[in-house]
Amino acid sequence: MQYELVEVRYEGDYATITLNHPQRRNALSLKMMEELTAAFNEVGESPVLGVILAANGPAFSAGHDFADMVDQDLMAMRRLLQVCTHLMNTIQAIPQPVLARVHAIATAAGCQLVATCDLAVASTEAKFATPGGKGGWFCTTPMVAVSRNIGRKRALEMLLTGEPIDAQTAYEWGLVNRVVPPECLVEEAQRLLEAATRGSFISKGLGKQAFYAQIDLPQPQAYAYALEVMAASSQLPDAQEGMRAFLEKRPPRFLRPGERSE
Amino acid sequence: MQYELVEVRYEGDYATITLNHPQRRNALSLKMMEELTAAFNEVGESPVLGVILAANGPAFSAGHDFADMVDQDLMAMRRLLQVCTHLMNTIQAIPQPVLARVHAIATAAGCQLVATCDLAVASTEAKFATPGGKGGWFCTTPMVAVSRNIGRKRALEMLLTGEPIDAQTAYEWGLVNRVVPPECLVEEAQRLLEAATRGSFISKGLGKQAFYAQIDLPQPQAYAYALEVMAASSQLPDAQEGMRAFLEKRPPRFLRPGERSE
Amino acid sequence: MQYELVEVRYEGDYATITLNHPQRRNALSLKMMEELTAAFNEVGESPVLGVILAANGPAFSAGHDFADMVDQDLMAMRRLLQVCTHLMNTIQAIPQPVLARVHAIATAAGCQLVATCDLAVASTEAKFATPGGKGGWFCTTPMVAVSRNIGRKRALEMLLTGEPIDAQTAYEWGLVNRVVPPECLVEEAQRLLEAATRGSFISKGLGKQAFYAQIDLPQPQAYAYALEVMAASSQLPDAQEGMRAFLEKRPPRFLRPGERSE
Repeated sequence: MQYELVEVRYEGDYATITLNHPQRRNALSLKMMEELTAAFNEVGESPVLGVILAANGPAFSAGHDFADMVDQDLMAMRRLLQVCTHLMNTIQAIPQPVLARVHAIATAAGCQLVATCDLAVASTEAKFATPGGKGGWFCTTPMVAVSRNIGRKRALEMLLTGEPIDAQTAYEWGLVNRVVPPECLVEEAQRLLEAATRGSFISKGLGKQAFYAQIDLPQPQAYAYALEVMAASSQLPDAQEGMRAFLEKRPPRFLRPGERSE
Repeated sequence: MQYELVEVRYEGDYATITLNHPQRRNALSLKMMEELTAAFNEVGESPVLGVILAANGPAFSAGHDFADMVDQDLMAMRRLLQVCTHLMNTIQAIPQPVLARVHAIATAAGCQLVATCDLAVASTEAKFATPGGKGGWFCTTPMVAVSRNIGRKRALEMLLTGEPIDAQTAYEWGLVNRVVPPECLVEEAQRLLEAATRGSFISKGLGKQAFYAQIDLPQPQAYAYALEVMAASSQLPDAQEGMRAFLEKRPPRFLRPGERSE
Repeated sequence: MQYELVEVRYEGDYATITLNHPQRRNALSLKMMEELTAAFNEVGESPVLGVILAANGPAFSAGHDFADMVDQDLMAMRRLLQVCTHLMNTIQAIPQPVLARVHAIATAAGCQLVATCDLAVASTEAKFATPGGKGGWFCTTPMVAVSRNIGRKRALEMLLTGEPIDAQTAYEWGLVNRVVPPECLVEEAQRLLEAATRGSFISKGLGKQAFYAQIDLPQPQAYAYALEVMAASSQLPDAQEGMRAFLEKRPPRFLRPGERSE
């Protein structure tokens, strides 16, 4: 696929998807969201171990593009938000860990992107906001992701005031995993993604999927589900290899993405 | 309505509801709870932008009044707790942001009040406790609100020990949004409430309601719901005005509470 | 019951259950889990007020024992995980508060044990990990407990990287209630457990049970449920005694475990 607003780069075991429409502050236009979804599907099916979501320009992403939305009717708005929700679901559905590398401000659906990724590393220059709270259109769908990352009072503060929080606050509230100076951002993001992509690819992919499936279930159903996933995945060659290697005190040799056991 | 235990004051765009029964440490007697519920309904239907819940005297609120409850039968206790739960639901149901301004200790259902408000600002002299844990009657309904504001281990610590936590701890755990010295409390509460009440009144009211509707749903249902609310509210005059003003680089002009578009 | 891998000690009003298989780093073998479940059931029915879960040796618990699991078929793995889940449920089902006293590293299902206990006190030398993320078998059932104790991004970091977090981080994230130097661990754990076991035994037992019943319910159902439990428990002799003692400004006299009112 040819991308116009997004860059997809493969390097070694990793892919980087970069929002590349700096003139519009990487606004999530319909086209941008469709390209992003296609890019996540592409890398999700490729043999990479992990994915970085990055951005070029002065903003990580400014969220939806008002120029696309003014005077649009209800059906057009529903479609736009369906495409957006599908993008968020795709990020959580692909087997690879996805890490948001946030160098600058992420607002509205841009903040939702960060909240949706499995992991996030922010520069000290990043900020996060759901500015609908001080405008005319509340950040209702970004709220779904943000309120599942941070506490209730903190989510309401962001949503109602629309004020940005700085990267350190985002770290303390649990919206991002690391905050580092801008010059360390690329390296730290890569370091965390590498740490998050060791071990069995297939087992980790099942684990990531199970995380999102179980997190919203009541605990008894979550255990019923997790138990079956964990028992089934014990039968995978990688699980057996991991146990044997441990008992034999040797390094394990796991299958690569797409590789099948002999 | 005439209030005996509660003061309702309107000032500019804001209302303040004050627990005003210092002799009984603002205990949540049946009468107090009925007046509070009436007061929240009254201000909820008034054209104010936001509401402060405050208290007079040495305690914010000591929770239920044992003098009302001793020797009461099951049906009386159910009714008391139904009135209490209805009060909590009313706070979250009115469209305006409600901010608890906590100057002193808040215990049991008094702590539940703080946990229930959308936002909270505490004085460094405030404390928070669910003392049923060290008494004869566990704080079971306060638990519902408290355990939805802070982490599980921390909620169990408060609930099982019954010991108060100080304002700084409440801040670190996410039970309150700000902690300030007593002499700054009124000003800081007002500042945060003003920040939380900018923008479109109608959009924010829908957003607040949607917050509580979506927070307990599994993520897929939360998105299905939030998507419809957000798409529908894009059609409001305020949403269109917000987008146009942004694109035209001018300040927006939103409808006031109760005002209709021409 | 005779225990081989577990020690059960009663002292005054408290029981201590100690994982005692240091040679295997207190691995949760089938036998270990069956003994632990039996031990929790035993102390749960005994007249103690609270329970400490401790461990001997260089690790708190290393989780499941790969020696038990390699080459086991699906049905054997399901049974193992069912026994494990039953152990976790038992800890939350007994009426007494259970406090994990963690002196050293707790990994995989060992970390799940800590996340499952009502309260936890850790030594500064403790660490916590779900190492399946860097191995061949993802920590899917430990994930259920861990992701219900800490924020989403933090849980994913632990799960995907498999890296240990130190005790201070566990405290900041809400996985443990206290961190103290090793030489203070026993004393601090006892102090917190005593604080958590004052007041009415029967009321607290109902409260603990209600905590886990309500925490996964949507708020309206949680209130409907909590309201009935709280109204019903107001009719207990201990609740009436607590209210009367408070109003009469005298210390209450609650029933001991197993004691009946006259």
